[in-house]
Amino acid sequence: MEIRDDRASTALLTDQYELTMVAAALADGSAHRRCTFEVFARRLPSGRRYGVVAGTGRLLEAMTRFGFGDRELAVVTPFLDSRTVDWLREFRFTGEIDGYREGELYFPGSPILSVRGSFAECVVLKTLILSVLNHDSAIASAAARMVSAAAGRPMIEMGSRRAHELAAPSSSRAAYLAGFDATSNLEAVRSFGVPGAGTSAHAFTLLHCGADGAHEAEAFRSQVAALGVGTTLLVDTFDITRGVATAIEVAGPELGGVRIDSGDLGVLARQVREQLDGLGATATRIVVSGDLDEYAIAALRAEPVDVYGVGTSLVTGSGAPTAGMVYKLVEVDGVPVAKRSSHKQSRGGAKKAMRLARSTGTIIEEIVYPAAGPRPDTGGSDSRELLVPLVRDGKAIEGLPTLTESRDLVARGLVSLPWEGLKLSAGEPAVPTTFVS
Amino acid sequence: MEIRDDRASTALLTDQYELTMVAAALADGSAHRRCTFEVFARRLPSGRRYGVVAGTGRLLEAMTRFGFGDRELAVVTPFLDSRTVDWLREFRFTGEIDGYREGELYFPGSPILSVRGSFAECVVLKTLILSVLNHDSAIASAAARMVSAAAGRPMIEMGSRRAHELAAPSSSRAAYLAGFDATSNLEAVRSFGVPGAGTSAHAFTLLHCGADGAHEAEAFRSQVAALGVGTTLLVDTFDITRGVATAIEVAGPELGGVRIDSGDLGVLARQVREQLDGLGATATRIVVSGDLDEYAIAALRAEPVDVYGVGTSLVTGSGAPTAGMVYKLVEVDGVPVAKRSSHKQSRGGAKKAMRLARSTGTIIEEIVYPAAGPRPDTGGSDSRELLVPLVRDGKAIEGLPTLTESRDLVARGLVSLPWEGLKLSAGEPAVPTTFVS
Repeated sequence: MEIRDDRASTALLTDQYELTMVAAALADGSAHRRCTFEVFARRLPSGRRYGVVAGTGRLLEAMTRFGFGDRELAVVTPFLDSRTVDWLREFRFTGEIDGYREGELYFPGSPILSVRGSFAECVVLKTLILSVLNHDSAIASAAARMVSAAAGRPMIEMGSRRAHELAAPSSSRAAYLAGFDATSNLEAVRSFGVPGAGTSAHAFTLLHCGADGAHEAEAFRSQVAALGVGTTLLVDTFDITRGVATAIEVAGPELGGVRIDSGDLGVLARQVREQLDGLGATATRIVVSGDLDEYAIAALRAEPVDVYGVGTSLVTGSGAPTAGMVYKLVEVDGVPVAKRSSHKQSRGGAKKAMRLARSTGTIIEEIVYPAAGPRPDTGGSDSRELLVPLVRDGKAIEGLPTLTESRDLVARGLVSLPWEGLKLSAGEPAVPTTFVS
Repeated sequence: MEIRDDRASTALLTDQYELTMVAAALADGSAHRRCTFEVFARRLPSGRRYGVVAGTGRLLEAMTRFGFGDRELAVVTPFLDSRTVDWLREFRFTGEIDGYREGELYFPGSPILSVRGSFAECVVLKTLILSVLNHDSAIASAAARMVSAAAGRPMIEMGSRRAHELAAPSSSRAAYLAGFDATSNLEAVRSFGVPGAGTSAHAFTLLHCGADGAHEAEAFRSQVAALGVGTTLLVDTFDITRGVATAIEVAGPELGGVRIDSGDLGVLARQVREQLDGLGATATRIVVSGDLDEYAIAALRAEPVDVYGVGTSLVTGSGAPTAGMVYKLVEVDGVPVAKRSSHKQSRGGAKKAMRLARSTGTIIEEIVYPAAGPRPDTGGSDSRELLVPLVRDGKAIEGLPTLTESRDLVARGLVSLPWEGLKLSAGEPAVPTTFVS
């Protein structure tokens, strides 16, 4: 790939042993053997019924910056021979990549990415590929469950403070991909065009409480004056009932929204809705936040909640902060290879995959089959090939899906699941996967 | 703080509502009130007995890059008035920060960071401060438990592939801080000077298995030729007993190490040790890896393991991927403030903290007390103030602890814990915290 000089190299986001393996493989000539590496997850996180592929767009961009300049070579020269250093200096990925579209659902064993090229050029990308896909897919997979639990109500991602500062924008992007509507993170707005959103914080109310006691009204008045009556006021700093009354007193019944960030959100939402309606603020929206996860969101389905704000559980993958994908060598010079250690057996050989669906669109099975073999008989079911070209001659294919298009793909994917696939409870993958050998 | 232009601005690693609050506070004049914000964790992750403060050094560096240039202002101008945009353009943090030293242990309610300045200059830093401290402290806190479970045996951090690509180097740093010996991540070597390390991967062995079947010996021979006899050979690609025999056949009894990455590691380590000793390779080290966490590490304590390689559980905080710290306004113009919502009550007022110890050095209590009040009577116990100056006049204090010094502080902290504080089982914080009001 062509290296763009305007942003930092990604070449050191790599494990040392990848480069020492390249050194040994350059020395014995095996570095140039044609290889296929595949990315897959042996299993979904405990009890999950599907995963969402995410990060592909970020990965392809990061690969354009994977090059070794003087700064990078200074780090690796102490433990590499000069032949390897020279090879790294000239390194450009020149191979091919096929993969599941970003936003596609996946299941255990789905060959999400297939990377072909020389051993050396494929192996040096291992850590970068897995880091991006494991992180983003973990977040998108958790986010999709939250989105389906919210049943169409808008959701704002606001978890940046509970994530690494440079991972947070990627989390916002993955959440948006999975169906969230907006993010609080400004870098995600800049880098990825995710719509921004925000309400207010307890600190702003407390700022207006000086020596003469609480002046919640003063804080609300100031916020409405600065941000307009469409703003969302945070009403739970002291007493919620009084906070709501003050909010409508100050802003009038045209107030955009109130946010509740603590307490029993279901009970409070009902009380606040009743109070707002009684005050004539029938269009004022109720935003709830505070340690929401997919289960809490689902539990609020019957309550008069208008918007969910989700933080910690989103950016931590709701119990599964990494997707557990691996990057395995499956073919060398056209011959399938696989390790045979206990419990970690892999399936050798380059693979393709297709997904079978009823005529209604509901998916029924995923079939993984040898790339070199014939396309399996689908018994008359509708079927769709899952791997599409992503990179050719080291360059990303033109016209790959935009983030918005990938977001649509997730939405269509969720609709295509059998009913039990959308259950939040622990269970088996939503559809079985057949491995044809 | 002075803005360094040579690296990317961190100003957009921020939640939108912080800037809209600044806008409202600039409009009503409250932006300039003198405030104190404090960082603390309401509780430790479930059952944990202590936490490790980490990220302070990274935070102070990131703050030097927190400035709004044209690129950043373009993102925020659409939702801010011109006064706020002008204020952001000129923004430099000019306040003071005190905090626990990086590497210090902490407990629920410990005032880990105390940030003082105008409301506006303190509130815009909220997300950056929490993102850095929450991530790094989560990793360091998990890593410290692994280090104490390893009881002095060397540990290599190798979790990059299961972490966001830009979070991974910070995880390596936090692990090193907590007592790990090395990392596989090259960017952590470059950015933070963490020692690098690496072994080999299954792909390298599989690369040497062509159409004529497995040639494990060829892979081993190539690796030894390129990297020397001190290298570590991965022996579990096919059959471990055969792999060990082949390794010593190829490398001789001077082989540096063998790695086992699958199976029942305790049983295998014993078998392999016996086999190696029988072959005269008595100094060849056994490196184990493969889904190790603090419990698995502890379970291997009686086995002949020489080095642990830890990945996924380290970078995901072993079940607690965020430290759950919050950033709360506690004082405005010298007057304590606190919200009173249910379950999330805060303690108002700027605080200090000290830790009491027996003459043996074992700690017995943490006391959190009003910064404005007298120092509580310690009843004759040894005591140590925990908050030290970090930033004055917007500039980091000279001579703050290096990463190595902070690493020593963690080691001393672990030794200072009462015995039950080092238990891996779920329990209460290792020492009680008294809040003096």
